[in-house]
Amino acid sequence: MSAQVTVKVFFEAAHRLHNPAMDDVWNASTFGKCNNSYGHGHNYALEVTVEGDIDPVSGFLIDMKELKRLVNETIVAEVDHRHLNHEVRWLEGINPTAENLARVFYQRLGPKLPQGIRLAKLTVHETDRNSASWVG
Amino acid sequence: MSAQVTVKVFFEAAHRLHNPAMDDVWNASTFGKCNNSYGHGHNYALEVTVEGDIDPVSGFLIDMKELKRLVNETIVAEVDHRHLNHEVRWLEGINPTAENLARVFYQRLGPKLPQGIRLAKLTVHETDRNSASWVG
Amino acid sequence: MSAQVTVKVFFEAAHRLHNPAMDDVWNASTFGKCNNSYGHGHNYALEVTVEGDIDPVSGFLIDMKELKRLVNETIVAEVDHRHLNHEVRWLEGINPTAENLARVFYQRLGPKLPQGIRLAKLTVHETDRNSASWVG
Amino acid sequence: MSAQVTVKVFFEAAHRLHNPAMDDVWNASTFGKCNNSYGHGHNYALEVTVEGDIDPVSGFLIDMKELKRLVNETIVAEVDHRHLNHEVRWLEGINPTAENLARVFYQRLGPKLPQGIRLAKLTVHETDRNSASWVG
Amino acid sequence: MSAQVTVKVFFEAAHRLHNPAMDDVWNASTFGKCNNSYGHGHNYALEVTVEGDIDPVSGFLIDMKELKRLVNETIVAEVDHRHLNHEVRWLEGINPTAENLARVFYQRLGPKLPQGIRLAKLTVHETDRNSASWVG
Amino acid sequence: MSAQVTVKVFFEAAHRLHNPAMDDVWNASTFGKCNNSYGHGHNYALEVTVEGDIDPVSGFLIDMKELKRLVNETIVAEVDHRHLNHEVRWLEGINPTAENLARVFYQRLGPKLPQGIRLAKLTVHETDRNSASWVG
Repeated sequence: MSAQVTVKVFFEAAHRLHNPAMDDVWNASTFGKCNNSYGHGHNYALEVTVEGDIDPVSGFLIDMKELKRLVNETIVAEVDHRHLNHEVRWLEGINPTAENLARVFYQRLGPKLPQGIRLAKLTVHETDRNSASWVG
Repeated sequence: MSAQVTVKVFFEAAHRLHNPAMDDVWNASTFGKCNNSYGHGHNYALEVTVEGDIDPVSGFLIDMKELKRLVNETIVAEVDHRHLNHEVRWLEGINPTAENLARVFYQRLGPKLPQGIRLAKLTVHETDRNSASWVG
Repeated sequence: MSAQVTVKVFFEAAHRLHNPAMDDVWNASTFGKCNNSYGHGHNYALEVTVEGDIDPVSGFLIDMKELKRLVNETIVAEVDHRHLNHEVRWLEGINPTAENLARVFYQRLGPKLPQGIRLAKLTVHETDRNSASWVG
Repeated sequence: MSAQVTVKVFFEAAHRLHNPAMDDVWNASTFGKCNNSYGHGHNYALEVTVEGDIDPVSGFLIDMKELKRLVNETIVAEVDHRHLNHEVRWLEGINPTAENLARVFYQRLGPKLPQGIRLAKLTVHETDRNSASWVG
Repeated sequence: MSAQVTVKVFFEAAHRLHNPAMDDVWNASTFGKCNNSYGHGHNYALEVTVEGDIDPVSGFLIDMKELKRLVNETIVAEVDHRHLNHEVRWLEGINPTAENLARVFYQRLGPKLPQGIRLAKLTVHETDRNSASWVG
Repeated sequence: MSAQVTVKVFFEAAHRLHNPAMDDVWNASTFGKCNNSYGHGHNYALEVTVEGDIDPVSGFLIDMKELKRLVNETIVAEVDHRHLNHEVRWLEGINPTAENLARVFYQRLGPKLPQGIRLAKLTVHETDRNSASWVG
């Protein structure tokens, strides 16, 4: 038996699927219109699930406001209203697919969690119909 | 391989985050505006996932209408349109955080399920952006 | 032809349907479980629609961030995480039905809008299935 | 640690809960109004979660467009705008409960996935409040 | 200035777009897969907006529970879990497009409303992306 | 009394709020982070409402599939997966605020509608919480 807490936060960003190590023909045929040169964008939703024990004094696994503050500080403040291929230092050289974003965000957030709180899953929703998760 | 069925039900209640064993300063600093004395409220959504085998005659894991009836009888009828700190006997002495509600609701519903049906997960959504689960 | 802008904001509050000028029997029979003495609660959603001309320099009818700031300052900051029957001075003596909230919020917000911006409609959603609007 | 990708697709179909091996009294008492002879219908949502490794060149676990194409070709094109009890050859003899649909869709889609991609979970949503999953 | 109340209710039904006065070729070419002979189905959502004055004693334009009871009794109880082309007496001879359903439901509900309450708009949502309204 | 039909379609694009006729200080102070030079993006939802009479033979005000085809051909195909400031000829020189997009899309779609069908309203949703409409 274990407790989980999930919070959902949002950010709005542009991205372009592109691997600069490959040529233009490969990029166009692999990524289609997601490879258009100026990029397109999404209202990204970020769903973060943590796992651990409920503190008997506060009744919290983790204060959800504090968890949101951590996610905002570590991830959202850096990517919101940005172009993910050009403006985020720690995404340089990473093709910003939903899968890669989920993995990098997970690796970035995990070590910031308080002791005893495990990052169980981080999901990046590109749209209501498409998402990728990194599962711990 | 296993089958799961999930149903979602709703109730509308008031609650206040407060631990009477601690003093006012601690409560105010731990719970912030969630500690306001009269409480605030939510449209709570309750998501219940059960697991087991599909019955070959009915094609059901469990009749969803029957599962909803059980959840309504065991939980919703007792908490809907109530103040969770004052009016529910089996929540007395429990700080009604989403985590504690998920745990107590799970413990209350689990033993009522028909034989062969396991309660896999119970999630309490306080808002579309905040939830807590108890995982079996 | 005219332009409209709509923003949606949220607050979480407790309320009780009750008219203190009427006796308990009338209140119980009129409001049912919504009359329970401690109150219940909602994740209220507030939808505000304004109307006017698009400014040719900014391309805005009104800056949505500024509109949200006005709604937050005028309404949300005062009712969020509050019990609407007990803690909001300008709701004293008003039975907090969705209809009355829509009307009072409208009257409170309207005069704060910049010149040339008309408050066309203010909707209070108690749940995804119940709402009331005040239409200007 | 593993990556997951989830896509959601929709189809609109009629169905009737009915086991022809059982008599009318049993069917009516087991399925209630879901046993009405002409059937009723749903906007079904199909949520498909696959698991595997992220390809380092494309940054994809699987191209979501390709995954959707597979789900559409294998399942949606055959059931969309159909009556599930009468018009789908591979559902003949199967009572179209959400549980059975999840199981059969899973068995149909799984073998079509590219090597290295595992079908982790397939969920059939009958409504926003009722769903069944088959978990691999 | 006026007050409005909107409630949303749901029903699940099968339908087929078909005009029996026209031949099969016309029906197939006009309605496409919506003309498949057994029909398909939807989770219909019905949104009803009424208009009038707020009663100063109750604070209600109309008791939303009473409005839902009227909609359920007059419409939902008759169409839920039914095939709209075959099982509803008052839909006989009517092609059940969303437009026709909105019009007929409006005409059926309007006269049942209490005095002083006007039916402003009735919307039939076939899916989250398609709806028709009848506006009074 | 009149009938309305509403359809909702989606596109994913990048945009930047910027008026090149004004200097950088004005742009930064007016548009804040929406003025970041590479732009950000949205899952735009486009809601189109048309008005007219129900055709007695088809039961349609307008075939929703045809209406969606018109919206897709006239608008979505040109803006989907594009950067609205750089890649759409008929948006050149227009600051792509939600208000301006609603107005330009309305002017572009209106004349393409079949005779007798009036474009009543076109709404551009930037997020679930922000939208602008052009009302005919």
